[in-house]
Amino acid sequence: MNPTPVAILGATGMVGQRMVALLADHPVFQIAAVAASQRSAGKTYAEASNWVLEGQAPADVGAMVVRGCDPQEMPGGVKIALSALDAAVAGPIEDAFRAAGWAIVTNASPHRHDPDVPLIVPEVNPDHLSLIDRQGPGYIVANPNCCAIPLSLALAPLHEKWGVEAVCVSTWQAVSGAGYPGESAWDMVGSVHPHAGAEEEKLALEPLKILGGSSEAATFPISARCVRVPVADGHLLSVQVRLTGSPTAAEVSEVMTAWQGNGPDLSTCPRPPLAITTRRHRPSPRHDIGAGGGMTITIGRIEDCAVMGVKFFALGHNTIRGAAGAAIANAELLLAMGRVPP
Amino acid sequence: MNPTPVAILGATGMVGQRMVALLADHPVFQIAAVAASQRSAGKTYAEASNWVLEGQAPADVGAMVVRGCDPQEMPGGVKIALSALDAAVAGPIEDAFRAAGWAIVTNASPHRHDPDVPLIVPEVNPDHLSLIDRQGPGYIVANPNCCAIPLSLALAPLHEKWGVEAVCVSTWQAVSGAGYPGESAWDMVGSVHPHAGAEEEKLALEPLKILGGSSEAATFPISARCVRVPVADGHLLSVQVRLTGSPTAAEVSEVMTAWQGNGPDLSTCPRPPLAITTRRHRPSPRHDIGAGGGMTITIGRIEDCAVMGVKFFALGHNTIRGAAGAAIANAELLLAMGRVPP
Amino acid sequence: MNPTPVAILGATGMVGQRMVALLADHPVFQIAAVAASQRSAGKTYAEASNWVLEGQAPADVGAMVVRGCDPQEMPGGVKIALSALDAAVAGPIEDAFRAAGWAIVTNASPHRHDPDVPLIVPEVNPDHLSLIDRQGPGYIVANPNCCAIPLSLALAPLHEKWGVEAVCVSTWQAVSGAGYPGESAWDMVGSVHPHAGAEEEKLALEPLKILGGSSEAATFPISARCVRVPVADGHLLSVQVRLTGSPTAAEVSEVMTAWQGNGPDLSTCPRPPLAITTRRHRPSPRHDIGAGGGMTITIGRIEDCAVMGVKFFALGHNTIRGAAGAAIANAELLLAMGRVPP
Amino acid sequence: MNPTPVAILGATGMVGQRMVALLADHPVFQIAAVAASQRSAGKTYAEASNWVLEGQAPADVGAMVVRGCDPQEMPGGVKIALSALDAAVAGPIEDAFRAAGWAIVTNASPHRHDPDVPLIVPEVNPDHLSLIDRQGPGYIVANPNCCAIPLSLALAPLHEKWGVEAVCVSTWQAVSGAGYPGESAWDMVGSVHPHAGAEEEKLALEPLKILGGSSEAATFPISARCVRVPVADGHLLSVQVRLTGSPTAAEVSEVMTAWQGNGPDLSTCPRPPLAITTRRHRPSPRHDIGAGGGMTITIGRIEDCAVMGVKFFALGHNTIRGAAGAAIANAELLLAMGRVPP
Repeated sequence: MNPTPVAILGATGMVGQRMVALLADHPVFQIAAVAASQRSAGKTYAEASNWVLEGQAPADVGAMVVRGCDPQEMPGGVKIALSALDAAVAGPIEDAFRAAGWAIVTNASPHRHDPDVPLIVPEVNPDHLSLIDRQGPGYIVANPNCCAIPLSLALAPLHEKWGVEAVCVSTWQAVSGAGYPGESAWDMVGSVHPHAGAEEEKLALEPLKILGGSSEAATFPISARCVRVPVADGHLLSVQVRLTGSPTAAEVSEVMTAWQGNGPDLSTCPRPPLAITTRRHRPSPRHDIGAGGGMTITIGRIEDCAVMGVKFFALGHNTIRGAAGAAIANAELLLAMGRVPP
Repeated sequence: MNPTPVAILGATGMVGQRMVALLADHPVFQIAAVAASQRSAGKTYAEASNWVLEGQAPADVGAMVVRGCDPQEMPGGVKIALSALDAAVAGPIEDAFRAAGWAIVTNASPHRHDPDVPLIVPEVNPDHLSLIDRQGPGYIVANPNCCAIPLSLALAPLHEKWGVEAVCVSTWQAVSGAGYPGESAWDMVGSVHPHAGAEEEKLALEPLKILGGSSEAATFPISARCVRVPVADGHLLSVQVRLTGSPTAAEVSEVMTAWQGNGPDLSTCPRPPLAITTRRHRPSPRHDIGAGGGMTITIGRIEDCAVMGVKFFALGHNTIRGAAGAAIANAELLLAMGRVPP
Repeated sequence: MNPTPVAILGATGMVGQRMVALLADHPVFQIAAVAASQRSAGKTYAEASNWVLEGQAPADVGAMVVRGCDPQEMPGGVKIALSALDAAVAGPIEDAFRAAGWAIVTNASPHRHDPDVPLIVPEVNPDHLSLIDRQGPGYIVANPNCCAIPLSLALAPLHEKWGVEAVCVSTWQAVSGAGYPGESAWDMVGSVHPHAGAEEEKLALEPLKILGGSSEAATFPISARCVRVPVADGHLLSVQVRLTGSPTAAEVSEVMTAWQGNGPDLSTCPRPPLAITTRRHRPSPRHDIGAGGGMTITIGRIEDCAVMGVKFFALGHNTIRGAAGAAIANAELLLAMGRVPP
Repeated sequence: MNPTPVAILGATGMVGQRMVALLADHPVFQIAAVAASQRSAGKTYAEASNWVLEGQAPADVGAMVVRGCDPQEMPGGVKIALSALDAAVAGPIEDAFRAAGWAIVTNASPHRHDPDVPLIVPEVNPDHLSLIDRQGPGYIVANPNCCAIPLSLALAPLHEKWGVEAVCVSTWQAVSGAGYPGESAWDMVGSVHPHAGAEEEKLALEPLKILGGSSEAATFPISARCVRVPVADGHLLSVQVRLTGSPTAAEVSEVMTAWQGNGPDLSTCPRPPLAITTRRHRPSPRHDIGAGGGMTITIGRIEDCAVMGVKFFALGHNTIRGAAGAAIANAELLLAMGRVPP
């Protein structure tokens, strides 16, 4: 089978680099173009990216010339783009690609709450993909924020089984969530601080769209406290949740363990999506983010909660499961559902 | 006025060292004896302590010979002891000093829930001191856990004004909370992990004794999630709280700002006990733990909470406000109330 | 005695903030003006500085309106400026102040190697101050780089006593050396990296000007390797040195211990300038940077070196001794020598 | 081909765990027994090891029962042991296995300087293996210290080509070098400190045995300064070296790049052994330790040195290339040379 060519928009940033790394040996996708801002365009990818992940850029991609983020500049025969663009510029660029008939699978936030843009975690709400019929000729599919993804995955089996009524969530978030250069080392060496951005608001909203029906969001309240910690990769969440019927921690553990996720098998998404650890001081970012190639959410300390009913920790790799891998999984879902434009 | 001589039990550990540092220039107390385990006894304090705080041990204390933790080995004329003993050994040693007529002001946990031992934060429940009348001839006064102190201080004005109904609390806890050597660097370099000990249980129980009456504890539920982070000193807490009457964040902020604390003025305790910051990414440990000489609790991000009503962050220096300074403040309270044995 | 009013140029950066903090209670200087880039000018200092040090900006300075870096915008009666300007802009601004008759005491690098600009560490080469007679009407006095200062202080007694023939130096440098925001947290969380800038070149050159005569530099070779480490404040250096006559480590230790430094007593500079520790795992930044209010250099592990003769570690607070405090000390030297313009 | 069964002594420590992880899918070796102290013996490996590396212990090894470190307790048919024992206990245990006819491939230090024990880095001095003929019936083969290995590998091509005359070396060493629990997090959060142990002495001696002939060590002086930094894995070294004939940095770079190492091809050892990077702020531990599966040494910033002639940085994974992988490579060398006991 011929590989499907894809373009990466915003390919030089940290999430773009993760996309490049994850697609280096991908079974169905092949990088056909890398695009970034005008500052990078015309340089080789190796030069423009100042590769910040482990090792160096894959040699073949490193030799590609970076293009501008314009559908006119893309090579022929490519009709699907993965977007790792900054929120500040993603909106109009993605609009332009959509207008040109492209499928845009985006990690950026601007279109996440458009009513006709599906916000998808493939094991949770693959059926929302039908929303793209309302767009056209091209369409945009979004993945959620890097905290909203592990939270949605952890809550999905509980919401399916009992129904979520309310959630208190706190985070211990890695610095890579801020991109590169992102957080100042001065602020993070031996310190932590409340997240200065809109992370808490996103975490309160996005899971509702994902866990609701394709046309109406769920309505339970989520109260989030997000804190940046001196960790390179890996967001840890504490979740305290009220469920209809007040199941015990043991029942919750059983349901989480058994949950296989929804939708078709995808090469990037391990099954089961959740791994349960019973070690008391785990999950921890440096020890557990590699699970499932960075795509598995590790759950620990599932215990009864005197206030909300049940509580647990959840950990995910924020730039793989929470960003680059999330977009690639959504692209795989499009392919599996026969929705990649010809 | 002559200074009051005090003995420090467990003087070589990290909290004991903080006591030594804080008492170096204390207006009313003077270190008369340092005591530790048999392994240390007979050595100079400088040698036995392997000083782990900034700089080195104060010269005069450094030259003292460490004694065993036995009332028989104490110098004459000293009747008050500050205990920084490990929980594993503190119980019987403190019992022996009490039986010998001493006032024990302890940071250790074994006696915290004895019904006749007051668990005191001096600005919150100084009236609980009357419990010592039930002990005799000596008595023990305890201070709470290093997380329970900032939580109790932050909740006190709210409980006094409206009544606390339920609390969800998460922590970002510094490594000094585990003493020395404490946490393994391997586990904490670029990582965080759920607290392996009974921290969550302590944080659920101790504030109830403090915020209740002297003979019956408060009864609201507290659900805690405690996580160790690579920070040297300073515990950050996120608090989501349900209050009777559902006051707004603005009302809560006003009450916290105005709160002056209870009881007599003490040289170690700044007034007001709480400092409110309005900077969005604060409080943070490295920037804010020094407030009030390490005794002020800094509160930030007081906001409405969709689940519990109100939420905020609180930060305190865990080995000063949360341990050594807490015990010294309780000793000052004893002195102010005329309860130091003659 | 009336305080001497000073202006701070580049007052909103990290070194500028350190200057503000150190001058808050200074015995002879008083902040009369704070100046920064046009982006900051017109705002209050509290607003413009986004205070990144502990706590918050001193209230009185916080309320000042930031001025542009132009002698015309300065208040009357002020004739001495401390410059914490970025190297990229410092040169012409300092030239303009000099031309207007000001004394500029600068931490910036552009003028450090001008033949008529003295590069001064006040305990080492206060006599170089005579170079300012070659400038006029105003003049510039520079302090060295944050690594060159501790290296020069550590070598000074050895060069005076025996003569330095060659130096190999390695550094473990704190992130504050890069200013704010400076280093990316992504690069520094659980990692270290060779310094990307010209630090090694500065460290090879500046000590030669300081340790030489006022009109000709010393000529011994210095080979430096500079590495950034995840430390907030405090540069640690390993120094391996060849001295004329091959003194032993014991002799070197004796000379370093006895050294009192040159020049007049200055309120910012403790005597002796060097503190010797004999603890095997010290000095270390978090434990020793506070020595002498951040102005003392702590020396440890003075040992025989099989290659160079003698080796030792030296530690200094990079934004106090190595930058802001260095400039203030030089201004104190000007005052002590009667060289502040009337 | 049937796999060769091996026993791991000291299997529960951090280096033992790395051996287990590296042998999980090894092409020729198969773990037949795991042994540790009496405290662990009798427990399953999963229980005894408290697995501290990423993820969890491989399921099959995790289910093994830990044996005591006694040749009598070993299963039949196993004649080669990898030792990750602590230096404090390794000597006599390894003696006992040798006396029982075993081949011991050890990472421990006690026998490293025995004249009949070869100290081997397989790409550097495989010919030293002949020393085992002087032992018998069994024999011990040692690998060097975790810093001495990258230093020896980096110097080998230079010593072969020109001859090393003197070396100044500084290190930025990861906490895993101290094992588990090893360094206290309190000492390493936001700080660095001179290595308290005998690391500098080992680094001055071991490369001489490796780079010398099998019966007489090289004699050039090495002066080392070792510093622990808050990095999980990866030792960075700065090397300043004087070479016979004073080659330029460019010549050194060319020789390092071309060097293929000595001895037979081994599955654990990539060729070439050294990777040269030209990025100015590299190598850095978090970005480069994975090279060659943790077995490649990354060299950077090869530059002329005003004092010694040439200088460069070298980085290696300290518990793979510097310990567990080093021992496995030596075992592979034994196998390749037909020296595994029948």
